[in-house]
Amino acid sequence: MDSVARLGERLQEFAAARDWEQYHTPKNLAMALSGEAGELVAELQWLSDDETKAGLAEGPLKERLADEAADVMLNLVRLTDMCGIDLIEAANAKIERNETRFPPKT
Amino acid sequence: MDSVARLGERLQEFAAARDWEQYHTPKNLAMALSGEAGELVAELQWLSDDETKAGLAEGPLKERLADEAADVMLNLVRLTDMCGIDLIEAANAKIERNETRFPPKT
Amino acid sequence: MDSVARLGERLQEFAAARDWEQYHTPKNLAMALSGEAGELVAELQWLSDDETKAGLAEGPLKERLADEAADVMLNLVRLTDMCGIDLIEAANAKIERNETRFPPKT
Amino acid sequence: MDSVARLGERLQEFAAARDWEQYHTPKNLAMALSGEAGELVAELQWLSDDETKAGLAEGPLKERLADEAADVMLNLVRLTDMCGIDLIEAANAKIERNETRFPPKT
Repeated sequence: MDSVARLGERLQEFAAARDWEQYHTPKNLAMALSGEAGELVAELQWLSDDETKAGLAEGPLKERLADEAADVMLNLVRLTDMCGIDLIEAANAKIERNETRFPPKT
Repeated sequence: MDSVARLGERLQEFAAARDWEQYHTPKNLAMALSGEAGELVAELQWLSDDETKAGLAEGPLKERLADEAADVMLNLVRLTDMCGIDLIEAANAKIERNETRFPPKT
Repeated sequence: MDSVARLGERLQEFAAARDWEQYHTPKNLAMALSGEAGELVAELQWLSDDETKAGLAEGPLKERLADEAADVMLNLVRLTDMCGIDLIEAANAKIERNETRFPPKT
Repeated sequence: MDSVARLGERLQEFAAARDWEQYHTPKNLAMALSGEAGELVAELQWLSDDETKAGLAEGPLKERLADEAADVMLNLVRLTDMCGIDLIEAANAKIERNETRFPPKT
């Protein structure tokens, strides 16, 4: 099974076991995703590119970013599942549109 | 190859062909992700849950949401790649932490 | 009349004249604010600090940022009004808390 | 002195006393604003409109929202100051553009 489909399945089981499906409307999940994106951005807001590079090499920053990126991903997978959207298909289709929109340098 | 790893590879090729790697710092990508999360939230901001459901059934809303979700995903994949983070591993680890943090109802 | 209170009054008249008060729930306005913050961030996401400085001097970037900052402000004023929050008082109180939290260098 | 101009002055003194002016680039402040907007949205993400209304009447939710709204405001004031933008003027100009863009019901 595809890794993203498997995440969606785990999230569905997680919500069902806690009776949380009632909260997982597209609107609420979009808000949750936006809040998590804000936490991700907050990790990097005062760092220069060199400080980020150093922080990633040391470890704690990388763990914090991985944790926030995971939160964004979980909300994104759950949101697209709730909307009947195939996230991987949509992402590949978007790359293809971008390839036309922004032709490569020659 | 895993679907997310494949997206990362396509994004790497896309950036290289346009000489855009210079812009893909963690900071810039986190900002781009945050901007796309804002566009996703904006699609749903004035809709009631019933209007969202109706909109998803009709089509155009679903396409717009798929497009915005794709933009979030592409920035998330690119950002985690640039930081050396395994997105799928981080997402699964986060589900496991949440399972401990929020024990299921019994 | 204070400039922020006057903005709030204009927004109230604007909403009433269009029968839009029904949409101005705290949840919807928080989403709108978040979406506008995303548009503001998007204006700066690929620019270096030097490019931003040059862009601000030339004009168009400054106008676009002013426009996005205005959108954030209007949603923030409307949201706090709908919640019975005095925005200026809250902002001053926060500065005072920050002064204690982050003592100045001596 | 106008209340927003006064906030800007206090933020300038606050930054100068801590040698933080170096961090207050438009890019960093836009990220900080976006992060705070995410925290504001997170306060409301799982609440129904009725729950928000009840929470605002009880107190703690109102205080938390006031605190997050203040953080957004402080970053917005600081950002516009750093860009030479008059926030109140921009907000009033935007209301006027919206009045033309969305004519009132008659």
